[in-house]
Amino acid sequence: MLKTLIQNAEIITMNKSDDIVYGDILVEDDRITAIGTLGDIPVDKIIDARRKTVLPGFVQTHIHLCQTLFRGRADDLELLDWLKLRIWPLEAAHDSDSIYYSAMLGIGELIQSGTTTIVDMETVHHTDHAFQAIEQSGIRAVSGKVMMDYGDDVPSGLLENTSDSLDESVQLLEKWHNRANGRIQYAFCPRFVVSCTEDLLVQVRDLSNQYHVHVHTHASENRGEIALVEAQRGMRNVVYLNHLGLANERLILAHCIWLDDEEKEIIRTRGVKVTHCPGSNLKLASGIAEIPQLLDAHCHVGLGADGAPCNNNLDMFQEMRLCALIQKPIYGPTAMNARTVLRMATMGGAEIIGQEDTIGSIEVGKKADIIMLDLNDFHVYPSFDVDPISRVVYSATRSDVVMTMVDGKVLMEDRRLHTVDKDIVLREANDAIARLQKRVNV
Amino acid sequence: MLKTLIQNAEIITMNKSDDIVYGDILVEDDRITAIGTLGDIPVDKIIDARRKTVLPGFVQTHIHLCQTLFRGRADDLELLDWLKLRIWPLEAAHDSDSIYYSAMLGIGELIQSGTTTIVDMETVHHTDHAFQAIEQSGIRAVSGKVMMDYGDDVPSGLLENTSDSLDESVQLLEKWHNRANGRIQYAFCPRFVVSCTEDLLVQVRDLSNQYHVHVHTHASENRGEIALVEAQRGMRNVVYLNHLGLANERLILAHCIWLDDEEKEIIRTRGVKVTHCPGSNLKLASGIAEIPQLLDAHCHVGLGADGAPCNNNLDMFQEMRLCALIQKPIYGPTAMNARTVLRMATMGGAEIIGQEDTIGSIEVGKKADIIMLDLNDFHVYPSFDVDPISRVVYSATRSDVVMTMVDGKVLMEDRRLHTVDKDIVLREANDAIARLQKRVNV
Repeated sequence: MLKTLIQNAEIITMNKSDDIVYGDILVEDDRITAIGTLGDIPVDKIIDARRKTVLPGFVQTHIHLCQTLFRGRADDLELLDWLKLRIWPLEAAHDSDSIYYSAMLGIGELIQSGTTTIVDMETVHHTDHAFQAIEQSGIRAVSGKVMMDYGDDVPSGLLENTSDSLDESVQLLEKWHNRANGRIQYAFCPRFVVSCTEDLLVQVRDLSNQYHVHVHTHASENRGEIALVEAQRGMRNVVYLNHLGLANERLILAHCIWLDDEEKEIIRTRGVKVTHCPGSNLKLASGIAEIPQLLDAHCHVGLGADGAPCNNNLDMFQEMRLCALIQKPIYGPTAMNARTVLRMATMGGAEIIGQEDTIGSIEVGKKADIIMLDLNDFHVYPSFDVDPISRVVYSATRSDVVMTMVDGKVLMEDRRLHTVDKDIVLREANDAIARLQKRVNV
Repeated sequence: MLKTLIQNAEIITMNKSDDIVYGDILVEDDRITAIGTLGDIPVDKIIDARRKTVLPGFVQTHIHLCQTLFRGRADDLELLDWLKLRIWPLEAAHDSDSIYYSAMLGIGELIQSGTTTIVDMETVHHTDHAFQAIEQSGIRAVSGKVMMDYGDDVPSGLLENTSDSLDESVQLLEKWHNRANGRIQYAFCPRFVVSCTEDLLVQVRDLSNQYHVHVHTHASENRGEIALVEAQRGMRNVVYLNHLGLANERLILAHCIWLDDEEKEIIRTRGVKVTHCPGSNLKLASGIAEIPQLLDAHCHVGLGADGAPCNNNLDMFQEMRLCALIQKPIYGPTAMNARTVLRMATMGGAEIIGQEDTIGSIEVGKKADIIMLDLNDFHVYPSFDVDPISRVVYSATRSDVVMTMVDGKVLMEDRRLHTVDKDIVLREANDAIARLQKRVNV
């Protein structure tokens, strides 16, 4: 058994009583086994946390690792143009190598900036190589291949037969679900209603029930998308998904900006999970989701950066700050305070994937997904008598993260990554996008 | 003469043709004297810029250094509550020591994150000590003491006699204006209309004309403020300032969120300068300024973080990103593209203070206010064939700045500050706010 002691920390626990405690955390293998003033106990490794702030790692509930290579290649477009003119042709040009380095580039950024768990959506092909990157890097992930068996303007490299899409999804599920000490889980990822036949969606429902895994898709992100769904299916997004029997507590819907009252009520009563992506929603000119309303109705809402080409970071500090700030002119200055936002970024995310008993807070018995911040710098000072949660949400930035631990393993220490080789990944990412660009005309 | 050569850089010049060039920059004393492939010329100092991106330092046109100590002490309040319940009592409790370390704390953050010029507004008293910090730190600044001779709920420590306010302003101006090789300039800073008698504003107008210095104030930030101005003066903010003869090219108005058509027309025809503060405007629930409209009308708009307690950073990367993102759901995805925003953050800011011939771009003959970014990291990659301006505006962060030069002097190199001692400033800032807090009841 590997014992690690995090010593003398300011600990933002994110437990039910919002306790902030000063002391030590004992980690045995993958679990937190004690919190408090633990003294000098024999351990294998000590992490000195004096003058440091320790909190649960961030859970980002909507990420596309396969798009990280496309950062900066699709600026200033609306969703449907962004997909058709840039992202779909680029995704169609991926090979296994470019998928692997796209994932590693994204994971490097995520671990560096304190995200320990992601809900990820890959592209149609080569998803095995994204899972390899996830496995090697040590990040916690719920991921799956995207499913697309319908729609205009879909490049031939992405458009699938329904049965091939389902078969490949099940193969990936059987290979990767619950692998790496449960750190990796599979989710079915139909892209969005306009990319999927009803047959596909119905079979995804049955498979999700059979395997007890999540369904991760996009819904109500863009008004053009909603109009398409209504024209094709005669119903709005969430109503349609409910009509097909997909609306339950295993359904994760990214964006949910333009919900009507009926859709909000379905989300509330069926326990559907929502992911808020403020950065992406602004950059793609999609709109501002009514998050305070959803939280007031006790809906489950997580937070995610979406993909690099629509953000252009995968940085939970940016998303937390945006999530708080953009609602205030609409709902008033107390809307989305720092505590509410930090809860969404940690326990809220854990609830989205049904892992609230396992991750999302620093409590005895939970998995050791822990990050450490050094908040001794100009931009987060003074520290004297300032709410630590305000410092984390409103002032801290990605570079304040000095240590990231997932499942009890230190993935970054003293700002140096242990499982992702920065020099290699940056070089190979550039080479991969240079080769990919030759295969595509965008 | 001190000669510095910045070698082998990617140079985002921000000149009129938006040139991005690869090569060297020669700095002689405070000036840029050559740009291009300069080879091995004899110099005193070489800055190796291989694989680095060099651009003009950011110009933030609305900052309150005196408030940096209050970071995290006034979250989640609207403007007038924020002022009356927190900021005014805190400002009234300042002493010379707390003003000095508040300024140094802010300047440390600004230099670290690539801001080389600020338009600053201090509090009523102790402004000499803010100027001392500005002088010692090497940052370029237009600053002045705030003027407040009117209003309810103003703490007695801030409320001034009209003549005292004017006299102290003129004394500070005569001491500090054009000091330090012209790096320091004075501006008259009436706080906002509701804090000033008409007599004060009229005399400020005359003094501004007499000394040819800027007037820096707030206007149309908050609907409550606008209602107060209309009730007291019978006119809207900008109409009133124009009525008093203050609306000219030396007037700098922070915020300008709720302008009506008449006010926009005054700003346009009189050449009044506007500072956009997106972070602060969201955090104080003030609103979103109609910046694309103002730019379309060829108004001059700069960008600024405002004060630490309403942001909670002084970070131009955050402001640029917000400035771009928040307009897109309103005006569409192409509104406020990266080029427009970077221009606001550099040349746009220089124009606000009438220094467009001196700073704001990297051109021969201009002052050497230059920053260098290391964009070789996960969150700004790939680099291959990506627009450098997209990388700077949409992906880069404060910690990517590795070198900051103002007036030809290196203020930060290899991320280490030369003129601001971090350990001392952080410790003294904490001590100063601890003592200040004992003098006030908020």
